[in-house]
Amino acid sequence: MVKRERRYRAGVDIGGTTCSAAIVSDEGIICRRELRMSAYATAEALVEGACSALREMMDQIPYQEAGEVSLAGIGVGAPCANSATGEIEAATDLPWPSPIPLKSLFEKHSGLPTVIANDANAAAAGEMLYGNARGYDNFIVITLGTGVGAGVVCDGRLLNGKRGFAGELGHVTIERHSSRLCGCGRHGCLQNYCSAGGVVHTARELLAAQPDSPSLLRDSELSAQRIYEAALEGDEIALQTMRLTGEWLGYACAQFAAFSDPEAIILFGGVARSGDLLLNPAREAFRHFALHLYKNKVKFLTTGLPGSDAALLGAAALVDIN
Amino acid sequence: MVKRERRYRAGVDIGGTTCSAAIVSDEGIICRRELRMSAYATAEALVEGACSALREMMDQIPYQEAGEVSLAGIGVGAPCANSATGEIEAATDLPWPSPIPLKSLFEKHSGLPTVIANDANAAAAGEMLYGNARGYDNFIVITLGTGVGAGVVCDGRLLNGKRGFAGELGHVTIERHSSRLCGCGRHGCLQNYCSAGGVVHTARELLAAQPDSPSLLRDSELSAQRIYEAALEGDEIALQTMRLTGEWLGYACAQFAAFSDPEAIILFGGVARSGDLLLNPAREAFRHFALHLYKNKVKFLTTGLPGSDAALLGAAALVDIN
Repeated sequence: MVKRERRYRAGVDIGGTTCSAAIVSDEGIICRRELRMSAYATAEALVEGACSALREMMDQIPYQEAGEVSLAGIGVGAPCANSATGEIEAATDLPWPSPIPLKSLFEKHSGLPTVIANDANAAAAGEMLYGNARGYDNFIVITLGTGVGAGVVCDGRLLNGKRGFAGELGHVTIERHSSRLCGCGRHGCLQNYCSAGGVVHTARELLAAQPDSPSLLRDSELSAQRIYEAALEGDEIALQTMRLTGEWLGYACAQFAAFSDPEAIILFGGVARSGDLLLNPAREAFRHFALHLYKNKVKFLTTGLPGSDAALLGAAALVDIN
Repeated sequence: MVKRERRYRAGVDIGGTTCSAAIVSDEGIICRRELRMSAYATAEALVEGACSALREMMDQIPYQEAGEVSLAGIGVGAPCANSATGEIEAATDLPWPSPIPLKSLFEKHSGLPTVIANDANAAAAGEMLYGNARGYDNFIVITLGTGVGAGVVCDGRLLNGKRGFAGELGHVTIERHSSRLCGCGRHGCLQNYCSAGGVVHTARELLAAQPDSPSLLRDSELSAQRIYEAALEGDEIALQTMRLTGEWLGYACAQFAAFSDPEAIILFGGVARSGDLLLNPAREAFRHFALHLYKNKVKFLTTGLPGSDAALLGAAALVDIN
């Protein structure tokens, strides 16, 4: 049997409680490890632990399967990670003081080139290499979860911008005279309408405006997930909520299209699991609001990354995307 | 005297009545020629004429000054020119039927690599090499004239997008519930507020809303230029018009910043000649509406290109920008 040379990537995903590390091939994750964040007193100790885990995993890849093995680099996805500075700047979820020079710590302890990025940019990289953006050079990934973020790929490259803050599309104002106050201190951000909290906000407004309309949502704890389930059961207020959320998203995407002329918009994160209940009104609003140049030219898709592996695949993909 | 090797660019600017062609060095225009569009029966005849003019100009550059001379390529700026397809797609201003395969015609008749782009993208290239964006890798040029266009440079590259329609920022909706109808068939585009016609529209609205306010503008033919001059003379309605125009622009730029994280926004074209009367309210609105990440990080400038040479310098710069 002829041995092939195989080039792997390392992916590291840093979250509030867990750090996952994986060796990733062109086909997907080969092996992975979880590290408990609380076991490490400093950021540098965590990075040392992650680099040890990556080395151990590389050593354990069976030689006959692997042939000549090399690791091209490490990609790290982390909240508030700035690809331009290589630092985590102000992550409130992590147990250590910011800024954390994440890129240089990984390079010091691994000897490998390291790319860091925030979750939305890692998601965009992941979609490009492993997900639904394969074959696309122009697309936008929008993450719809607790917050709303985005990663923009234009002409085959992930946009960074001067200080690494390109693609903060959750904070584009979509309703200038909105009464919805955003965590950023401004009003009417996309995030106020299309995050999980935005969906709940919309449902509450509809419930208050239609006091006589019966709804499953009146008797339950409101969450974006609960509203989606009620919509599946045909609940009118829940259906209206999904439709409005999709319309705001489609309207916003019509504006985004004029910036980067994408061929696809890919939705990622909890709220995106609503699928066509969200996508169909988004597509319709996009058709209505987009300039003729972009009409019927932009596909609306949901993520093609498998849920539990998405963050690691995205992190690993950063190695090759820039 | 040791002869230096000099690498020139050719710039061609195609307008409604005139086609200008120039040989351009790193310092600026060396020589130029004007061709009358009406003298050419077909687009190919014009391209042949322009390529002959470029060859003649190259031949006439004195050898002792030029040393070894080479032409790196041709950059062409033209209305509706699409860099992705290499064609002029639907230019109503030109006397020949569209589409015109401009890039391949120039390459056929010159043997040189050719880049074509619309006016706004050529302006962005020009600012980067010769104007006020020198040293910036992240900036947006916004052209404020009969229409509003933009060229976006992010991470050192001019964005094209899937079909070459990136940066159509004149058609971003800035007032969703606006009564102003755009030529594109939609309402509330930036172009409706910040083009020359948008400025006149705003002045008319203010004159109608304040019938008792004396104004120089009541007795005159309205134009953006006239309104600017009246503002310089202290006319209250004209000053309000400039302030509102600047505020809309600053609000729009606050949204654009979230897309590409620029370090500068450069205004170009007739309306931009209003200078600080436009720039100051734009800066103020940007500070008010931008996400904290971008506040006080983005310079607002006017073009650094000399008026009569701007289009040719921009066209020539296309050779090196992508």
